[in-house]
Amino acid sequence: MEQAKRGGTAGFPLWQIMAELVGNLLVAQSGGPTAVLNASVAGIIQEAGRHECVEEIYGGLHGIWGILNEDLIDLNDEKAKTIEGLKYTPAATLGTCRYKLDFKKKPDQAAKDLERLFEVFQAHNIRYFFYCGGNDSQDTANKIHHEAVRRAYELRVIGVPKTIDNDLPHTDHAPGYGSVIKYSATTVMEIAADVGSMSTEEGSCTIIEVMGRQAGWVAAGTVLAKRAPQDAPHVILTPEVPFVEEAFLARVQEIIVAHRSCVVVVSEGLKNGNGEEVSVDKSRVDAFGHPVLSGVAEKVEDLVTQKLKVKARSVKLGYAQRAAAHLASAVDVMEATACGEAAVRAAMEEKSGYMVKLVRMQSEPYKWTTDLQPLDDIANVAHPIPRDWFSDDGFLPNEKFIAYARPLIQGEVKVPMEGGLPKYVALERSPVEKKLPPRA
Amino acid sequence: MEQAKRGGTAGFPLWQIMAELVGNLLVAQSGGPTAVLNASVAGIIQEAGRHECVEEIYGGLHGIWGILNEDLIDLNDEKAKTIEGLKYTPAATLGTCRYKLDFKKKPDQAAKDLERLFEVFQAHNIRYFFYCGGNDSQDTANKIHHEAVRRAYELRVIGVPKTIDNDLPHTDHAPGYGSVIKYSATTVMEIAADVGSMSTEEGSCTIIEVMGRQAGWVAAGTVLAKRAPQDAPHVILTPEVPFVEEAFLARVQEIIVAHRSCVVVVSEGLKNGNGEEVSVDKSRVDAFGHPVLSGVAEKVEDLVTQKLKVKARSVKLGYAQRAAAHLASAVDVMEATACGEAAVRAAMEEKSGYMVKLVRMQSEPYKWTTDLQPLDDIANVAHPIPRDWFSDDGFLPNEKFIAYARPLIQGEVKVPMEGGLPKYVALERSPVEKKLPPRA
Repeated sequence: MEQAKRGGTAGFPLWQIMAELVGNLLVAQSGGPTAVLNASVAGIIQEAGRHECVEEIYGGLHGIWGILNEDLIDLNDEKAKTIEGLKYTPAATLGTCRYKLDFKKKPDQAAKDLERLFEVFQAHNIRYFFYCGGNDSQDTANKIHHEAVRRAYELRVIGVPKTIDNDLPHTDHAPGYGSVIKYSATTVMEIAADVGSMSTEEGSCTIIEVMGRQAGWVAAGTVLAKRAPQDAPHVILTPEVPFVEEAFLARVQEIIVAHRSCVVVVSEGLKNGNGEEVSVDKSRVDAFGHPVLSGVAEKVEDLVTQKLKVKARSVKLGYAQRAAAHLASAVDVMEATACGEAAVRAAMEEKSGYMVKLVRMQSEPYKWTTDLQPLDDIANVAHPIPRDWFSDDGFLPNEKFIAYARPLIQGEVKVPMEGGLPKYVALERSPVEKKLPPRA
Repeated sequence: MEQAKRGGTAGFPLWQIMAELVGNLLVAQSGGPTAVLNASVAGIIQEAGRHECVEEIYGGLHGIWGILNEDLIDLNDEKAKTIEGLKYTPAATLGTCRYKLDFKKKPDQAAKDLERLFEVFQAHNIRYFFYCGGNDSQDTANKIHHEAVRRAYELRVIGVPKTIDNDLPHTDHAPGYGSVIKYSATTVMEIAADVGSMSTEEGSCTIIEVMGRQAGWVAAGTVLAKRAPQDAPHVILTPEVPFVEEAFLARVQEIIVAHRSCVVVVSEGLKNGNGEEVSVDKSRVDAFGHPVLSGVAEKVEDLVTQKLKVKARSVKLGYAQRAAAHLASAVDVMEATACGEAAVRAAMEEKSGYMVKLVRMQSEPYKWTTDLQPLDDIANVAHPIPRDWFSDDGFLPNEKFIAYARPLIQGEVKVPMEGGLPKYVALERSPVEKKLPPRA
């Protein structure tokens, strides 16, 4: 079928003939979910439906982990309304994984996995593969792309960016980021109103812990809650600015004297001057071997209580912040969807080995577009907040950061409600018949 | 002025003459804020505006603490639009306090405070006093009422109920409760989608800590997130049901085997079989002498990690849950407003020494009204969830609880947005001129 269609035909422009790679499409999600990760999948499915050379649209359950097990579902079997509903449904509708092709630590397993992935691709005539994820996931997509080239297996691989951490390089920002800061800034605003109304002469300090291991983008984003100089957040602690206890305590003390109530936002990955994480539990590591961080808010809370003798309380938003689709940014949903659509269009234009990126044309009024970046450029490149986007003392992002972040939280998404709670969608998940023996 | 108007006039019905206590109104807020505490204040102000015998409408800043310091503001100076905006603005717009008239522990101070309060009332011709708060605040209101009677100082004192904890007796539920469970149930639903999409064969457990020291109403309310038997929350731990470690771990293990991912909601005041709080820091007490609770989620997290060897993570919503006006329940806002209005109407009908209460007429469809309960009946009466509102094993509230809680989260409030974030209102706070020497 594929070969038949691909024969060049006189009269057709060359680009059209070249684009006519006929086969099936596979989309999967990887890494930590976001409020808009499913919007990218919706974008991919809806755009793919417009291209005849895409025959079947499959979803891989739980990223490459599920694909290795040939756990595929038929997305063409889903209702159009469900696909549209993915745009306001949080988490990863296909399931996600933290499994990766680790040629450094487990070269034999990684080689076997890569072999198996191509067996699955071949068995199901997968010619388009879209992987939605962060740094590690883009690395996986890149390895698959290079292996396809090596094997001369015709496959178009496009990575779709996603991470609340906003630590992907080259893209202006990552889908998921706008929503997490919209929710977190709202939460900071609401908590500040609450603790402000309880303030007493003795003063109080509230510490709000947000995600962000390598970079402080989420914490910094809560600065948008600050409409007037006295508004919270009063101090934002990020991994980019080394934590100096004395300077921090002095600043909190100043705030309490001025406003009675001090609201501090802290990134989970806050580091001291030696680059050591302020709160690291070395006894636990995650699936990628990164140490598990927890409790930085409690550490700061204890510090304030003990050293300043003021009442301190902490809030740990945890997974709530990245799943809060009920307060997603409309801009974020639109961009996440557009990234999925752009990935499909890139593949139709014979591109492979790229990640879709968001390009900012201007901030005020906000104009953006999508473009492509070679996957080779992505993996393991850090993306911290520039130092000159912070105030001199490092305790707050400045107007450069604000100009960057503000457009990303604009607009609200209308989530259907049922019985007073959001009515999110779930896929039917009609399984694709397996064609291979189980994975060894 | 007051005496002049109060002279009986032939032709007027008796009740109208009796109601004609002319003077000024004072409203204050006390205790922990809620998402709808300001709606009650708006209800009071708007209803008071309809009664000519109310001359000035004052707000006491930071509850009785501010009233003792004669810190009053003129609420008639506020824009009508701001007053209306209070209905969707979280926290306590007048400021709140945890100060109380403690005749048991500090009888001299309490007597002095009571004396001073009446000096302030007299100086400003306060004839209507409304105190919005929980158990301790209703107790304060009651003391003021009895003192007014003792002194034959004509004062109408009505308490307006408020507490996210829902631990006020006699009222079907307290304003603030519906919103906190709407937000918390939504958050549980979103977190469950997130962790469910990351689930692996090894399983995981997510522990979400919510407020609730004496009673588990908030934790129990998250059961509304459960639309299907397999949905989160899977286990709800409340102070009403003694925590038994082995039974809990066995249940979590069952859930993980069945669904891979287990979501547990835990009340901060969870108790063991001896009635001891599972997480209590005896070294810290709050202003009322209650021990500070913190970290029950971490304790449960550590337990699951160590005993079941599965990945566990915790979320501590803290102040975020009670301040989340962006997801307030429309029913709750309506009821909170109505409680404020009913308080004023009760005072106009010569009532004093009562708390407004919410009365449920039927659950399906939900019909309610307000009524009055003597303040003498309120103070320090516990209001736990009935044991027969839980499943036999105590791990989940049952259909009786659900029938109770479901009506309270219905409907959404349209919060104006500005720049992608809620646009809450703030009072101008025009101060009322002080007439007394400073408090001793």
